[in-house]
Amino acid sequence: MTDKPRILVVGAGAIGSFYGAILKRAGCEVGVVLRSDYDAVKEGGFRFTSPLGELSWQPDRVYRADEKPDRFPDYVLLCVKVLPGVDRAALVRPWMGEHTGLVLIENGLDIERDLAEAFPEHPLVSCLAFIAVSRTGPGEIHHQAYGQLVMGNFPAGFDGHCRRLSSLFREGGIDVNDSEAVVGERWRKCVWNAPFNPLSVLCNGADTLSILDAPGGEDLVRTMMEEVMAVAAADGYPLPDDLVEKNLVGTRKMGAYKNSMALDYLNDRPIELDAILGNVVAIAQRLGVPVPHLTTVLTALRIRYQ
Amino acid sequence: MTDKPRILVVGAGAIGSFYGAILKRAGCEVGVVLRSDYDAVKEGGFRFTSPLGELSWQPDRVYRADEKPDRFPDYVLLCVKVLPGVDRAALVRPWMGEHTGLVLIENGLDIERDLAEAFPEHPLVSCLAFIAVSRTGPGEIHHQAYGQLVMGNFPAGFDGHCRRLSSLFREGGIDVNDSEAVVGERWRKCVWNAPFNPLSVLCNGADTLSILDAPGGEDLVRTMMEEVMAVAAADGYPLPDDLVEKNLVGTRKMGAYKNSMALDYLNDRPIELDAILGNVVAIAQRLGVPVPHLTTVLTALRIRYQ
Repeated sequence: MTDKPRILVVGAGAIGSFYGAILKRAGCEVGVVLRSDYDAVKEGGFRFTSPLGELSWQPDRVYRADEKPDRFPDYVLLCVKVLPGVDRAALVRPWMGEHTGLVLIENGLDIERDLAEAFPEHPLVSCLAFIAVSRTGPGEIHHQAYGQLVMGNFPAGFDGHCRRLSSLFREGGIDVNDSEAVVGERWRKCVWNAPFNPLSVLCNGADTLSILDAPGGEDLVRTMMEEVMAVAAADGYPLPDDLVEKNLVGTRKMGAYKNSMALDYLNDRPIELDAILGNVVAIAQRLGVPVPHLTTVLTALRIRYQ
Repeated sequence: MTDKPRILVVGAGAIGSFYGAILKRAGCEVGVVLRSDYDAVKEGGFRFTSPLGELSWQPDRVYRADEKPDRFPDYVLLCVKVLPGVDRAALVRPWMGEHTGLVLIENGLDIERDLAEAFPEHPLVSCLAFIAVSRTGPGEIHHQAYGQLVMGNFPAGFDGHCRRLSSLFREGGIDVNDSEAVVGERWRKCVWNAPFNPLSVLCNGADTLSILDAPGGEDLVRTMMEEVMAVAAADGYPLPDDLVEKNLVGTRKMGAYKNSMALDYLNDRPIELDAILGNVVAIAQRLGVPVPHLTTVLTALRIRYQ
């Protein structure tokens, strides 16, 4: 017996299998719930290439989505994409025991509410992942770089569950930023994502520098970032004034880069439009903050994706 | 000998060969300057399908762009697309005699200035075409519908040249709206074109109803139309308040429709982005009129087309 918690990863794609690998390295028992890759992973586990060294692992349990757990986990790691029509509470419910905590490792803004309402008695830990990782085949994952998490309770705080998970992830080999205000951190990431991700799709997969170097491109990105900052402030999360310029300088320094939404678009996968942009515009409308540039980009993508 | 004027069409694509056909029917001598379709037209003329009846015609003269005219025409009809990097004054110059008048049949806003400055001593007639016509092969044109022109002098007025040309076009079988304020008419057409044409390209060829029926789509189109109206008013061309709603109702009535820019996009042809939208935004900036929605659409397309 170990005092390490039992983990179950729901949605063990590239992100989920990566953080599962990290917790496995930290000594946890880690199971996964799979759809398309069930056979490959049941047979051969997850095979990784990674600058962190050997991350390949065999899950302790491999479930199909319609199975039942033989024992409830201490924590469910939810790592599915946030898409309209995907009821994440329903995906998670069969795996939640009386004391199971729910850990989100997902992108976007205002993505916790549904789950907080569905599981009001359970611990809820919200994580943002800063990582470049992709699935290259059934059970095959290529981890290019990074892996840092920002972690905190939703809507605020940093409780014992966070402390426990945070130190396990560190043991497994990644950095974790403990945050008492994870929603603020989501807003901060959103200042970059809300312009660049949707614009890259609208421009058919354009990279960051193509966007910034087009006539008017940098001005448009700056204005969209300022709109996000204004909504964040109205929502109670003022961000530092110099964040926009720092983002722009940092983006140029990083060189031409195709963000995850651009890659989703180029690979014909659904895009997380609401989580990244739609929710920002909805909050802006509720709070009466004008966001004409964000609205135009959102609407153009809704026309394409309706 | 006839007292009908000699016409030379520069840029005898679908539009140019259509209006050449009309003036030929009216009894004019009509020549053409061609690039790619020179051999086909020299050999077999223009072959039309059209609801107006037999429009096929053999030009009286067929020139290549690098030839010299054996006699200067009374009017040059300029029907090329308005694209960055295309010096229309240079295209026209070799064909302009001392008394040759210049007739533009081209789409867009603020597209006359270069030519007015290049040929200050020559008559300048500016026409907007309302027509659905397309080239289906070398020298082959399919005229689907319409053909009406709005005509006037640039920047204002309706002189003897306009009267003469206007009645010739009518003799040839199309309607002409005589206008003392053709720039105002360009603004009026722009209220429809500036939202729908670029949005259709940004949405990868979406038709009018797909744009209007998407969540937020009609609001976006309405707001873009209102922005164009505000720039037009600031530029000295106030338009009727109900134009926006009339445009929206009319567009719905017309049914799903792919505009010319959508077709250019879908057929990998260059799009007239500046003539249709860029010039509106440039005038807005000069006059200090805020146009955030127009600017966002323009910039996203500039990123794609840079």
